[in-house]
Amino acid sequence: MRVMGVDPGLTRCGLSLVEGGTGRSVVALDVDVVRTPADLELAERLLRIADAAEYWMDTHKPAVVAIERVFAQHNVRTAMGTAQAGGVVALAAARRGIGVSFHTPSQVKAAVTGNGSADKAQVTTMVTRILGLQTKPTPADAADALALAICHCWRAPMLERMAYAEAAAAEQRKRYEARLRQVRKARKEAGTR
Amino acid sequence: MRVMGVDPGLTRCGLSLVEGGTGRSVVALDVDVVRTPADLELAERLLRIADAAEYWMDTHKPAVVAIERVFAQHNVRTAMGTAQAGGVVALAAARRGIGVSFHTPSQVKAAVTGNGSADKAQVTTMVTRILGLQTKPTPADAADALALAICHCWRAPMLERMAYAEAAAAEQRKRYEARLRQVRKARKEAGTR
Repeated sequence: MRVMGVDPGLTRCGLSLVEGGTGRSVVALDVDVVRTPADLELAERLLRIADAAEYWMDTHKPAVVAIERVFAQHNVRTAMGTAQAGGVVALAAARRGIGVSFHTPSQVKAAVTGNGSADKAQVTTMVTRILGLQTKPTPADAADALALAICHCWRAPMLERMAYAEAAAAEQRKRYEARLRQVRKARKEAGTR
Repeated sequence: MRVMGVDPGLTRCGLSLVEGGTGRSVVALDVDVVRTPADLELAERLLRIADAAEYWMDTHKPAVVAIERVFAQHNVRTAMGTAQAGGVVALAAARRGIGVSFHTPSQVKAAVTGNGSADKAQVTTMVTRILGLQTKPTPADAADALALAICHCWRAPMLERMAYAEAAAAEQRKRYEARLRQVRKARKEAGTR
């Protein structure tokens, strides 16, 4: 499965491409960081990020795009920009019929380091080791984009199983409730007779 | 000036088109609310909003798109979705070379009601009166989108004048500093002689 990882951001937006094999085997195919100057208008910055992401999607044809889910950060203004950058990338994927999956920063950290509150250095170290890279990917946004794609490769089978289990449970609950209604109805009828 | 007003949102996104004339004269040309179901995937919701906004831009050819600037709200999750909806609309405008202008909710309220903390009912009443509408626009998102476009029509000349004044002030400051450096240099040379 070819996964495009995206660490969204207006100033720096990390993009990565990872091929997930059987088990835990993952291979890095590409990584880059798109930068937009802070003095540019917001719409123009979003356009540059969207253009870069679309070029990646059209060139690399990923099966799925994994994007970091943004939460409120210390700086609300930054969080909004980050959310918007992630939004335009998600839009580009949707236009191409490519599935989009969101992962929280702690899910990503937990997946690659085993610790949901690992620091940036730990994430970079583990990404370098997992992918068997010669040098550490820099800046941190590049490492984060790779971590996101790895996280998706490893979480996807689990998420699929969970979705399957949830659907099965919902189906079972529906059948149980139907049986319950039937029994209640039969009892009521027996009572009135 | 033909202005497209956008009250961004995932569940309901208000779109309006207003023609601003000389002075304070404004005429409503169109208004609509795009809805996307909450159970749809985020990327798919953004796609529907972007499609609707792009259709509007291509049909109505606005000179500028005025979007509400989102701040942190009570609900951070909602604020993120709102920011993303606004982001994809800004992107669509940038792709078409249409200028984008952001206005805060209090700027919009102050422009149409004279009170930056006016409530929704006041905004709707004033929008109805300003545009000379037969009935109040509903839902509130439609009224907000109209208010945004009106706000832009009225603030744009002022923003232009401010940008001009700021540029002039920066130019003057630059000349003053250059003169100051010259005087200091001359004094230093006179002292060493």
